Amino acid sequence: MGFNVRTLLFITRNEGKVRELEELGRAHDIVIKQVGYDYPEVQADTLEEVARWGALHAIEIFKRTFIIEDSGLFVESLDGFPGPYSAYVYKTLGNKGILKLMSRIKNRRAIFKSVIALCEPSHEPVIFTGSVEGEIAKKAMGKEGFGFDPIFLYDDKTFGEMRRDEKNMVSHRRAAMLKLIRWIVEHKDVYTI
Amino acid sequence: MGFNVRTLLFITRNEGKVRELEELGRAHDIVIKQVGYDYPEVQADTLEEVARWGALHAIEIFKRTFIIEDSGLFVESLDGFPGPYSAYVYKTLGNKGILKLMSRIKNRRAIFKSVIALCEPSHEPVIFTGSVEGEIAKKAMGKEGFGFDPIFLYDDKTFGEMRRDEKNMVSHRRAAMLKLIRWIVEHKDVYTI
Repeated sequence: MGFNVRTLLFITRNEGKVRELEELGRAHDIVIKQVGYDYPEVQADTLEEVARWGALHAIEIFKRTFIIEDSGLFVESLDGFPGPYSAYVYKTLGNKGILKLMSRIKNRRAIFKSVIALCEPSHEPVIFTGSVEGEIAKKAMGKEGFGFDPIFLYDDKTFGEMRRDEKNMVSHRRAAMLKLIRWIVEHKDVYTI
Repeated sequence: MGFNVRTLLFITRNEGKVRELEELGRAHDIVIKQVGYDYPEVQADTLEEVARWGALHAIEIFKRTFIIEDSGLFVESLDGFPGPYSAYVYKTLGNKGILKLMSRIKNRRAIFKSVIALCEPSHEPVIFTGSVEGEIAKKAMGKEGFGFDPIFLYDDKTFGEMRRDEKNMVSHRRAAMLKLIRWIVEHKDVYTI
C-alpha cells in the first residue's frame, strides 16, 4: 500500500454496503475494512438521529476512528414510509409489501437516502448525507444490489438492474461517501488511523 | 387517599394508555400519575427489548420508581409486522395501510401485545407482558381507543367499538397490568414510592 492509502473501519453487517463503499473508496486510496458488529439503532424519525445515536454507542465500544452508515427509502405518498425503518420493513413486508401499498397510487416518487457518520474518539460524530430521487416501479426488476433496489426506478432501470459500478455512479450512498472523502482529504491532519 | 394507596409514575405521552391503566389500577388502590417524557426507543425485534432499553435510559434521568409501557400489533400473515414499530407505522400508513396490506389475505390472525417495565433505581427492570388474540377486521370500525384499535377484531367487535371498561376486561394492557399489580402486592416491602 502506498504512502497515501488510508484504512477506514466500517461497522456494519451488510456486505452489499461494504462492496459499494470499497469501490467508491478505491479511486481515492481509501481502503474500507468491515467490522461485523450490531450497534443499537434508535427509533427516530430521521436517519441522522439513528446514525448519531449508533455512533455514540459504538465509540464507547471501539474507542477508535470508524464509520457507520444508515440508509432508507422514503416514499412520498406513504408519508415517508418505510424511512428509518427500511431494514425491518424489508425483512417483514419485503418489496411485495411496498408494491401492494402502492397499488393504484399515481404519485410514485421516492427518495433513497444515505447517512454516513464519521466517528473519532473524543469528537462529535460528523454526519454526511446523500440522496437520489426516483420512483417506485410497478414490479420488482433485477437481482443486483440489495434491499429495495429492485423496486427503485432511476430513469429507465431499477437499482436492481444496475451493476454495482452503474449504481455507484448515481446512488445516495455515492453522494454521502463523496462528501466523506472530501472531508477526509481536507482534514488530513485531524483524521488519522 | 387511604393508607394503602400507592402512586405509580407512568412515563408516556400517550393519554389513551394513561386512561386505561388509571382505570385498571383504581380497583387495587393504585393511582397512576403521568409523566410526559419521550425516552428513546431502540429498533429491536421484540417489545421487551424496547421496554428494557427505554427503562435503563429513563432511570438515569428520573432516579426513582416508575413504569413505562410499550405495545404493538403483530399480524401473523405479515410476519409480525408492524410489531415493535406500530407507533411509526400507525403514523405513516395508518389503519388504511394495514387494511390494504391485508386485502385478499385469508389468514387475518393478529396479536396485540403489551409490555410494562417496572423500574426502580439500582434494580434491573422487571418486565410484565400481556397479549390478546384477535383478527384484522375487513374495515375500520368504531372511534373508541386509539391506534390500531378500530381494525382489531375481538369476537364480534373491534377494540374501536368498545368502551374503555369493555376493552379493559380483555385487553393485552389489562393482562400486563394485572401481572404488575400482583407483583407490587407481593413485593410490598421492595416497592416503595
